[in-house]
Amino acid sequence: MIRIIGLDPGLRRTGWGIIAVEGSRLGFVACGTVVSDSAEALALRLKALHEGLCAVIAAHRPDEAAVEETFVNKDAGATLKLGQARGIALLVPAQAGLAVAEYAPNLIKKTVVGAGHADKVQIQAMVRLLLPKADPQSADAADALAVAITHAHHRTIRKLVG
Amino acid sequence: MIRIIGLDPGLRRTGWGIIAVEGSRLGFVACGTVVSDSAEALALRLKALHEGLCAVIAAHRPDEAAVEETFVNKDAGATLKLGQARGIALLVPAQAGLAVAEYAPNLIKKTVVGAGHADKVQIQAMVRLLLPKADPQSADAADALAVAITHAHHRTIRKLVG
Repeated sequence: MIRIIGLDPGLRRTGWGIIAVEGSRLGFVACGTVVSDSAEALALRLKALHEGLCAVIAAHRPDEAAVEETFVNKDAGATLKLGQARGIALLVPAQAGLAVAEYAPNLIKKTVVGAGHADKVQIQAMVRLLLPKADPQSADAADALAVAITHAHHRTIRKLVG
Repeated sequence: MIRIIGLDPGLRRTGWGIIAVEGSRLGFVACGTVVSDSAEALALRLKALHEGLCAVIAAHRPDEAAVEETFVNKDAGATLKLGQARGIALLVPAQAGLAVAEYAPNLIKKTVVGAGHADKVQIQAMVRLLLPKADPQSADAADALAVAITHAHHRTIRKLVG
């Protein structure tokens, strides 16, 4: 059995979700959101994200990590902000010695819902169906569980290819 | 006397430069570049930048940090990459307990050269003039020293305002 942590990075809120995988069976472990205070300086917000994610990994000891590939929108300022938060989301599992996979939003939707253009409500419904014990309190935590589920489905293939 | 570390973030190369400031006198301490291997996975590259910058701060113990505000160009993919590296450049000094200031490229050029549209050659020439003992081996290291010089000039005013 291995544990996978999925991460949906954001400067204000980074969602995280941990699942256990045994063969083709998935189990819910934990999920939540690490937040940073928008009144704080940027460097301190990134430090808060780093500390929060380190605490999650220390508490739940996942074996592998998967991070959502950031949606690149047209606002360069927003892309830069997201990039900075994403840097922390990639760094923390790498520092813990975990392999870190990345998945595009469309692949996550396709894997979890079956369609590349699913909306947030559909993703949350499928996450609850696949992980009945999960009760994500935020869309970010549900998205993070979807990233972890995606990795559970693709990791074997990735290993064969990579 | 205080020590300032200036940082010019980049995923492939992050320039760093440390100066000593006593009143209006500036002295060169050290400068260099932390590199990451483009053949490595993104998470490992960010980890290498983190480790490299932690080692620089441990070796030279600066008191304050200043980071160049990333130039946001039209390529969203490049902006995202830069954002990820910038997240690490902001995180490391914050983890070490340093206050982290940010400066726009135009302000750096205006402070060091006297004109907001100076080119890299002019910046390097002025850095050598202001810090005769500095011999930056790369444009990134010279830029990082320029960021540190900018902070030396503006930190008093910032403190009065902030």
